[in-house]
Amino acid sequence: MNVLVINAGSSSLKYQLINVETHTLMAKGICERVGSAEAFHKHGLDDNEVVIDAKMADHDDAMALVLESLVSGQDAAIASLSEIDAVGHRIVQGGKYFDRSVLIDDDVIAKIDELAELAPLHNGAALMGIHACMKHMPGIPMVAVFDTSFFTTLPPKAYMYPLPYELYEKYAIRKYGAHGTSHRYISERAAVVLDEPLEDLKLITLHLGNGCSASAIDHGVAVDTSMGLTPLDGLMMGTRCGAIDPAIVPFVMEHENLTAEEMNNLMNKQSGLLGISGVSNDLRSVRTASEEGNERAMLAYDMFSNSVKKYIGQYIAVMGGVDAIVLTAGVGENCDKMRRMIFSGLQPLGIVLDEEKNRHRGFERIISTDDSAVQIIIIPTNEEYMIARDTYEIVHDQMVGIQP
Amino acid sequence: MNVLVINAGSSSLKYQLINVETHTLMAKGICERVGSAEAFHKHGLDDNEVVIDAKMADHDDAMALVLESLVSGQDAAIASLSEIDAVGHRIVQGGKYFDRSVLIDDDVIAKIDELAELAPLHNGAALMGIHACMKHMPGIPMVAVFDTSFFTTLPPKAYMYPLPYELYEKYAIRKYGAHGTSHRYISERAAVVLDEPLEDLKLITLHLGNGCSASAIDHGVAVDTSMGLTPLDGLMMGTRCGAIDPAIVPFVMEHENLTAEEMNNLMNKQSGLLGISGVSNDLRSVRTASEEGNERAMLAYDMFSNSVKKYIGQYIAVMGGVDAIVLTAGVGENCDKMRRMIFSGLQPLGIVLDEEKNRHRGFERIISTDDSAVQIIIIPTNEEYMIARDTYEIVHDQMVGIQP
Repeated sequence: MNVLVINAGSSSLKYQLINVETHTLMAKGICERVGSAEAFHKHGLDDNEVVIDAKMADHDDAMALVLESLVSGQDAAIASLSEIDAVGHRIVQGGKYFDRSVLIDDDVIAKIDELAELAPLHNGAALMGIHACMKHMPGIPMVAVFDTSFFTTLPPKAYMYPLPYELYEKYAIRKYGAHGTSHRYISERAAVVLDEPLEDLKLITLHLGNGCSASAIDHGVAVDTSMGLTPLDGLMMGTRCGAIDPAIVPFVMEHENLTAEEMNNLMNKQSGLLGISGVSNDLRSVRTASEEGNERAMLAYDMFSNSVKKYIGQYIAVMGGVDAIVLTAGVGENCDKMRRMIFSGLQPLGIVLDEEKNRHRGFERIISTDDSAVQIIIIPTNEEYMIARDTYEIVHDQMVGIQP
Repeated sequence: MNVLVINAGSSSLKYQLINVETHTLMAKGICERVGSAEAFHKHGLDDNEVVIDAKMADHDDAMALVLESLVSGQDAAIASLSEIDAVGHRIVQGGKYFDRSVLIDDDVIAKIDELAELAPLHNGAALMGIHACMKHMPGIPMVAVFDTSFFTTLPPKAYMYPLPYELYEKYAIRKYGAHGTSHRYISERAAVVLDEPLEDLKLITLHLGNGCSASAIDHGVAVDTSMGLTPLDGLMMGTRCGAIDPAIVPFVMEHENLTAEEMNNLMNKQSGLLGISGVSNDLRSVRTASEEGNERAMLAYDMFSNSVKKYIGQYIAVMGGVDAIVLTAGVGENCDKMRRMIFSGLQPLGIVLDEEKNRHRGFERIISTDDSAVQIIIIPTNEEYMIARDTYEIVHDQMVGIQP
């Protein structure tokens, strides 16, 4: 079964075409700056990637370009659109409604729309992606895979904020989490690498990219996560501040005369590694600057690693121990220096990084020492594969279900 | 040496008269609702406490009443004001200027005034208390003891927030901490109880009252603490929310149409145990309600204990272990149920509460089991004693210094 995976952002549309049975990535690409004069379309697998300037007024135009690129040219992934069997959509906010992936119907669309209040940019974009697919591939089965559904198992003590209870009742202000598909994927893969049932493991999963989140996964069940009502909560990130003294927010708004939107912008786009270092939101650039003696870059490194270290401690306390710590995404997979700083000083807790194994990169592996009580594992994340797999399973079950 | 300890709040004035050499509490009391028609004055030791309605237009009036109560009546603590040798003032915010207690002079007063920006209610009130003492006891040596000075040892990775660096440069937005005098006192007493030098210990100190804070004290040096720019940061408290997803702040301000001041009020006075339970900010009332089956009260209990548990984990990671966890203040000293919940499940980390020892209350004691790797200790806090002792030491040194 060929599944087209769609990840629609506010001004972008990422896609992969995956054959689920054979685990084959058939095509991938991204439309960026959709709706602007600088829109472009990147398409193709690794060596064959081409970048084309292209006019895209909206996600509907972008989807038309994507579908065309799949079937045209000598490297066409498929001969005709009829070879696409199903579409899987990544949806950021599933709120209280979706504790798992679901087949998309009118009711699901209405609920995604209703939840846009909690994720205005993301859910709105996802809906544009869904509608564009319905237009260009009428009747094709589509599945919604939610970033939040993995975290619907959180207990109330983990998802409630200590605010007036009425705010929870009135606006559903609570912790929803994010990056759930990634945490789910790397926890499953970690169990495979460790050759133990997921149900027997206490895991801490760390998705450290430009966005960062940590989760406590106790015997296969997510019991806490660092992202909250929005993906601003929790860890320090590339451009996001994470959890801070909330009194700072009205203080800065008043003194800098900022609107709510401007303050959100400051905390989401001008903070984190970028805000502290003044160099970049990209850890690679911050690392280079810190190694050249830039003190603010060094501070950003220190703060980032300290932020992760604290979450490791938190979740060890929450679960009463940990069997393995799993890292993924840009920083987690690739930065040996950051990993060294995160795990430095944790030897008394039975967490010992192997300096040699820590140097390698790019594949699933254990990087703790052989006698470390707690395993440290790197798993390159693959959210698209998880979306394709969920889509396959739901559509396949449905097909079986409607046959006699 | 008799030291008068003054703790001036925005509408209150607490005091104790202490003989430092003999460790004797000679008098104590509080003026409340200063400046309102309902002002009253509570004076006297335990059994002899009397409450008097009294007119107090300001802190100056309150101070006059306090001094009069010390020298009048048959239970007068002292015969004349000349028996007061020095005054120690509690100051909430010492900012970057004060890494220890200091003798008050014009320069110190100017700096406390300058720092009022960071603690408008508290530092302003402290200045009123200082000026009132100068008026009624001209020439008496006075010492300022800062809530923040114990935390000036925090490394930048602990005190910086991952916000644009310019906010730190422009407004000195950073973590200052609070309850420092309490954390300092209980860490010193814990070393005495353990009969080990403070310099050899890794301690986590938990001040759990209506306000709550946690500190990591590594070999006698504070390396992290939970309160931040303001005392709103960190743990869930009686009426304060602690650290939350900062995106919630503009969200609620916009949707509820709140000013910065109203939002601060909501987070500082309507949140925490009170906000969740809807019953009270007082854990005793929340406990009663939870035992009567009130589900929101049970949730408040769960959330509070979980919040403390997470800080214990954080600071274990920050220090790479812990020798003892020290509890103080109303909840920390008195609520056996909350302590049981905080430490439940931490046995794999070598932290084992002794259920029997946990039942007693009201004095310094170890409440972990004999074979617990980590000691759990209760130390009733005594900030006034610390203020009196600092005052004594500074004034004594000064007196010795000016003699030939």
